[in-house]
Amino acid sequence: MEPTRPERAPGGHARRRDALRRLLREAGLDALLVTDLVNVRYLTGFTGSNAALLVHADDEADRGEDRTVLATDGRYTTQAAAQTPDLPVLVERACAPALLRRGEGRAGTVGFDSAHVTVDGHADLLTVLEHGELRRAPGLVETLRAVKDAGEVDALRQACAAADVALVGMITAGGLAPGRTEREVARDLEERMREAGAEGPSFDSIVAAGAHAAIPHHRPTDAPLADGDLLTMDFGALVDGYHSDMTRTVLIGAPEDWQRDLHALVAEAAAAGRAALAPGVATRDVDAAARDVITAAGFGEHFVHGLGHGVGLVIHEAPAVSATATATLETGMTVTVEPGVYLAGRGGVRIEDTLVVTDDGAVPLTQSPRDLEFRDDP
Amino acid sequence: MEPTRPERAPGGHARRRDALRRLLREAGLDALLVTDLVNVRYLTGFTGSNAALLVHADDEADRGEDRTVLATDGRYTTQAAAQTPDLPVLVERACAPALLRRGEGRAGTVGFDSAHVTVDGHADLLTVLEHGELRRAPGLVETLRAVKDAGEVDALRQACAAADVALVGMITAGGLAPGRTEREVARDLEERMREAGAEGPSFDSIVAAGAHAAIPHHRPTDAPLADGDLLTMDFGALVDGYHSDMTRTVLIGAPEDWQRDLHALVAEAAAAGRAALAPGVATRDVDAAARDVITAAGFGEHFVHGLGHGVGLVIHEAPAVSATATATLETGMTVTVEPGVYLAGRGGVRIEDTLVVTDDGAVPLTQSPRDLEFRDDP
Repeated sequence: MEPTRPERAPGGHARRRDALRRLLREAGLDALLVTDLVNVRYLTGFTGSNAALLVHADDEADRGEDRTVLATDGRYTTQAAAQTPDLPVLVERACAPALLRRGEGRAGTVGFDSAHVTVDGHADLLTVLEHGELRRAPGLVETLRAVKDAGEVDALRQACAAADVALVGMITAGGLAPGRTEREVARDLEERMREAGAEGPSFDSIVAAGAHAAIPHHRPTDAPLADGDLLTMDFGALVDGYHSDMTRTVLIGAPEDWQRDLHALVAEAAAAGRAALAPGVATRDVDAAARDVITAAGFGEHFVHGLGHGVGLVIHEAPAVSATATATLETGMTVTVEPGVYLAGRGGVRIEDTLVVTDDGAVPLTQSPRDLEFRDDP
Repeated sequence: MEPTRPERAPGGHARRRDALRRLLREAGLDALLVTDLVNVRYLTGFTGSNAALLVHADDEADRGEDRTVLATDGRYTTQAAAQTPDLPVLVERACAPALLRRGEGRAGTVGFDSAHVTVDGHADLLTVLEHGELRRAPGLVETLRAVKDAGEVDALRQACAAADVALVGMITAGGLAPGRTEREVARDLEERMREAGAEGPSFDSIVAAGAHAAIPHHRPTDAPLADGDLLTMDFGALVDGYHSDMTRTVLIGAPEDWQRDLHALVAEAAAAGRAALAPGVATRDVDAAARDVITAAGFGEHFVHGLGHGVGLVIHEAPAVSATATATLETGMTVTVEPGVYLAGRGGVRIEDTLVVTDDGAVPLTQSPRDLEFRDDP
């Protein structure tokens, strides 16, 4: 079906497509086939569950924007008309091959997201390609997404605030009393985030009491909180598609010395990681700043994951913040810092914040107290 | 790191791996690299967010089961020990290449899931392969998953019952009063499903009132229900990882003739689809049985999606039930039947059930009344 061309309205999504076209020119691509749905949403605002986008670079004959087309299937024609009035819509079930077939002939070298397109999906694309060339082009849109604009930071700030409000509200209301279950705590936090304006949780909440806190990605169970437990809560809120991410480890009752020491160690590592965030810094150096604190204390082998990750339209996105990462921080990036130490059979501590990198260092978007003995009015 | 070999305990997951080995032999594969996390869960019970599994076929020298290895990263060692005590665990961040490297040398022809492995992921696999051969082998585990065992049907039955209880309970409690918002209805259903034992909703609930009911995948808004609205609710519950899926369209207030006629038409199509389900029947013929009813009434162009889909550990899985599907039904398959007619600007009707195919036809697992004017005590 041939799409008709609507009026164009400039806006945030059009600006992002302009920025992408600059990357296409640098990469020597005549067009990019965008297949990841989050990238489609970022570039167009369309949120349906089946879509693809063909973004053309500018050439002598035309502005690339005038040839940019969204494809989706018949379930989403009404929604596409509402969400992307500035783009023509091609209605086809197999979106990516349909766009490639249509754009072919003058497409030249078309990039595709080789980190997203499957081996079978690539074979399907090759069957419709007669003249042009398909070239691997992973991560182009992700590069743009890593640096947030003001509206994105605002959505993340709201998502982080919803998690803060939920945590403080729950604890103030006595929500961490011994006998409550991990599952009840998780549900309570999620309910309170919704009341605070979130669309829902940004991922499956982790609530881990006692020995469960030694499992970094523990799923909440019906196990009750008990006096003397370390309790780790890793949760976040979703606002306008943007994900917040925060972890606090608190003590139920009065801490023993080893619990206090462990918490202080992880808090020191987290502070070192946060302090290391600045434009121009390699993210592996941020990881090292926190990891060195834990390693020096003899717990390096119990910090079994990277220090953090970018966060935005996806809970884990670029840039990675780990010992093997190759990214460099820029102003506008939003990342987590979340060192953890896990002692099998005993418990664990993780402290995580979401922060935005600014010209003057990083600003935390999550603002809940980080104390082991959580005070509702610090 | 070299995994150690634990004691073996026979069980459901081991039986599934045995069944997979029979498929490997038929496909001429010496091993299968399983990368999709749902397939890993199905074959092992492991539910972490990073894993892969290398399943070896039997050969003259050894039972393949004795060489089968799970890989995951350091976050999940405790969880893997608890969930898969019968399998050795290789701890590596890049699970699939690590398994391939380790299994290489005697692996021979290794199948990979080309419908899941990305072009870049495939390139990574090729870099560690020195002697063996990688061969496309999509859909092998999905073929097994399409036919449910008794435990799986039981989980689906519980998930469907939770949705039934939620819907009847909400309506009985006056939960569809004019003025309530779509979002409130969605939240109410989700809350009630959890109270009925669900881990949560099985997908983002669709609640669409009035003209919104013309949008097949509408997301709930703050729009209030109004007298005279068609209201479509498409929702489901998650129990033990299994997903239920049900849609009901009811009227707020008293129906007009066109609403009654439209609902009766879709109900007739749904009944025809359900009646067509039986072992040995091509799923495209099931689609046709329902679609013919709607087409004959002149609404064919407004039924813009397939009739249904398999449902289990994933909300949409094999077999597809559509005009272009190539699957044939077998006893133990669980599928949805969900015809819909959508009239832009006016509203729409969709009626969906989840059913299990038995030797004697199909048995609905969702059991809520299908009436336009929903009776809580039919």
